[in-house]
Amino acid sequence: MKKISFVLYLFLFIVFGASAQQKPKYIFFMIGDGMGLNQINLTEVFLAAQEDRNTVFPLVFSTFPYATFATSYSLSHGVTDSAAGGTALAVGKKTKNGVVGMDSAANTAYKSIAYTAKEAGLKVGITTSVSIDHATPASFYAHQPSRNRYYEIAEELITSDFDFFGGSGFLSPNKNSKKEDAPSLFPKFEKAGYRLAYGWEAYNKIKPAADKIILMNVEDGDHSSLKYAIDQKDGDLNLAQITDAAIESLTKNNDNGFFLMVEGGKIDWSSHANDATTTIKEVLDFNEAVKRAYVFYEKYPEETLIVVTADHETGGIGVGNGGSRLNTKLLANQRVSQGTLSTLLADLRATKEEVRWDEVKNVLMENVGLFADVAVSEDEEKMLVAIYEKSFVRHETETSKSLYANDDKLASEAIKILNKKGSVSWASGGHSAAYIPIFAIGAGAEGFTHKMENTDIPKKIAKAAGWDF
Amino acid sequence: MKKISFVLYLFLFIVFGASAQQKPKYIFFMIGDGMGLNQINLTEVFLAAQEDRNTVFPLVFSTFPYATFATSYSLSHGVTDSAAGGTALAVGKKTKNGVVGMDSAANTAYKSIAYTAKEAGLKVGITTSVSIDHATPASFYAHQPSRNRYYEIAEELITSDFDFFGGSGFLSPNKNSKKEDAPSLFPKFEKAGYRLAYGWEAYNKIKPAADKIILMNVEDGDHSSLKYAIDQKDGDLNLAQITDAAIESLTKNNDNGFFLMVEGGKIDWSSHANDATTTIKEVLDFNEAVKRAYVFYEKYPEETLIVVTADHETGGIGVGNGGSRLNTKLLANQRVSQGTLSTLLADLRATKEEVRWDEVKNVLMENVGLFADVAVSEDEEKMLVAIYEKSFVRHETETSKSLYANDDKLASEAIKILNKKGSVSWASGGHSAAYIPIFAIGAGAEGFTHKMENTDIPKKIAKAAGWDF
Repeated sequence: MKKISFVLYLFLFIVFGASAQQKPKYIFFMIGDGMGLNQINLTEVFLAAQEDRNTVFPLVFSTFPYATFATSYSLSHGVTDSAAGGTALAVGKKTKNGVVGMDSAANTAYKSIAYTAKEAGLKVGITTSVSIDHATPASFYAHQPSRNRYYEIAEELITSDFDFFGGSGFLSPNKNSKKEDAPSLFPKFEKAGYRLAYGWEAYNKIKPAADKIILMNVEDGDHSSLKYAIDQKDGDLNLAQITDAAIESLTKNNDNGFFLMVEGGKIDWSSHANDATTTIKEVLDFNEAVKRAYVFYEKYPEETLIVVTADHETGGIGVGNGGSRLNTKLLANQRVSQGTLSTLLADLRATKEEVRWDEVKNVLMENVGLFADVAVSEDEEKMLVAIYEKSFVRHETETSKSLYANDDKLASEAIKILNKKGSVSWASGGHSAAYIPIFAIGAGAEGFTHKMENTDIPKKIAKAAGWDF
Repeated sequence: MKKISFVLYLFLFIVFGASAQQKPKYIFFMIGDGMGLNQINLTEVFLAAQEDRNTVFPLVFSTFPYATFATSYSLSHGVTDSAAGGTALAVGKKTKNGVVGMDSAANTAYKSIAYTAKEAGLKVGITTSVSIDHATPASFYAHQPSRNRYYEIAEELITSDFDFFGGSGFLSPNKNSKKEDAPSLFPKFEKAGYRLAYGWEAYNKIKPAADKIILMNVEDGDHSSLKYAIDQKDGDLNLAQITDAAIESLTKNNDNGFFLMVEGGKIDWSSHANDATTTIKEVLDFNEAVKRAYVFYEKYPEETLIVVTADHETGGIGVGNGGSRLNTKLLANQRVSQGTLSTLLADLRATKEEVRWDEVKNVLMENVGLFADVAVSEDEEKMLVAIYEKSFVRHETETSKSLYANDDKLASEAIKILNKKGSVSWASGGHSAAYIPIFAIGAGAEGFTHKMENTDIPKKIAKAAGWDF
């Protein structure tokens, strides 16, 4: 009978043990804002092209064992915004464009999967490369009729009681959505038990004694977003660091696992600007953050789930614009983002009364490769010179400060030329309705095998974790 | 001991029986030529929009339990053509653009999965909505240094000894690639044992007595391709009929299963012409063919594998061109393909010396909806009138050339206006490097869970079937 028991045990183990899925204890929900399939494809093609290879060099997440795609439309529009898109991913329900974590009429607050994770005993982290009150991260902790209610969104960070927040900072910590002065949020955060870390060094100083942390850019840094990866210098806070800090913080004195949302927020921004090289570098920057999650996964492969997705595609980017040969290698000639190029041009414009065309040309050469590796046709040069004359000779743009804050037209036209020669097309400066990509690895990843609704993504994660959601 | 044996048997059954996958006996390999993810997405959005629904109505294949995507680049180019793309899908190896079923130097003939299937004892069918000697079907049975060697490609149909061929016909059955007169292929086909069926009625007549069949368009029909679905009338041969005939023919007196390739070949053609409505109707037409495969799958779910994919994306189509609201419903105002609209305009032009603008306008209204449901701006009308004056008054006809058509400029501009208002964007008249979609259901479908190379697709099918390939 002993033999029977053993064999029976084996039998039962195989039937029930193997079919009972391992539940993820460590969940990474990573969102490339605006990162459509073509943004990923372009990045893979670009990497190979740098070594003159006509192939693709995959990213960490594009080699995951599960890859599929989902719809992105919102309840109100065929093309979603980041609020409705983020809400779909966070709460598993579609809503109206502009609404964060609520129904379309803004009567009912929806519970996000981050709250469900918290209730299940996990620690929760919400991180991004833009501001912590921006639509995507907000969808995970806030419930507001409008994504523009930055102060009110940030206030909900306190009631969330989540364990780690990371990003550039806050857009409106002292003024409410009625534009009225309001009590600074920072003392409130501290009162609620959060330690504020302004920058990487500050984080490292406070972390031994800190339980709950809000990691932001240095105090005199830009609090609306981290710098574009292409513009970052040593010492600038980046998304991989924020991811590291989140993992470190969420695993400290914690055996109950964690749920960590990481947003690569500026893939969307550079795609809105139709700036391909900056977009590629943002995808790579996001990929670095995924790498940190992947290293963690390698330590706990049975207990970790990584899901990489997007809220929508931005720009209707295309790889290939007519010919069969791709010239994406050319895109590497761009050294700075369109925004920084605008600043460089503005700085040059400010140096003297009349800047010569060849000086301007030199800036375009050094930073975008035009007139050097990137050939410029006669017509294209004529067009650039016309903009230069208006801006640098007739000073018709000099007094318009807002214009400098937006991108300089010379910068955007130069980058348009580079993109065209670099085999990239753009449909618009807005979002598109394209399917969003999904990549998954680890415990529960096997749920991501088919085309689905964006709202299915958090449901699948919750199901894998065994949560009612 | 009896008990032990039983339990052991159970144990062994579970361990080995459950892990031994059911092998597919009936394999459908269905290729939407030029059907990128956005062509599918647009069709789903369009279907829902017809009922004023802001959602998607899925296609048969987009609900399959496995959906992922693959690269499409060829060995020579970042953007593949249909020859290298078809070859990758057929033989599992990348080659140079333009080459059919051979290596880049055209020294070595590659064996396609159709030949492997034939060797394994299955019957084989090769079908398409374009000509049977076109690049995609050719990749499965021919080996030629150039896709343009139509006569030589078609000759290989004989040596293939495959069981069923279906399509519009042959492009060059009497002239070889040197443009020399050559013996008609049709008696050769008959001598090799094929019964020729010109049209649906002829097929039904010959089928009781036929073993191997070549089904084509009626003798006075177009042998370069079936009519666009949008232009088809009752009695025109269509892809679903060809699929039905193939299934019927391949299952007759055959217990060994079959391998059937079905190409929706004109999704590519209408995308080259940047004609969105015609493209949608082609995707739906292809979907009808997939439906026939799906009905078969429902009869033999354990033994059938359906894989739906594409060789590449065409046109860099985008859904959404700036705004958040999609107006794809408008696209339904188009009643004929761009090609047929060109013919209608040419016919009108031929009726008299000077056709009035309002007569032309009427054609555009009736067939594209312009000036009726589709509002036309003053500038747009001015532009159309200028083309009309040149073409209808000064009789200097302008055309808009795409890969497979030379359409009237008035037709292409009218459709460009409709596409723009219908929220569709196009990057170019060529192919793009976008990932190709993969959808799978049935025995072996579980291999399609992750992003792969296009060359992996036939390898996965062969692996599922247990073939060396």
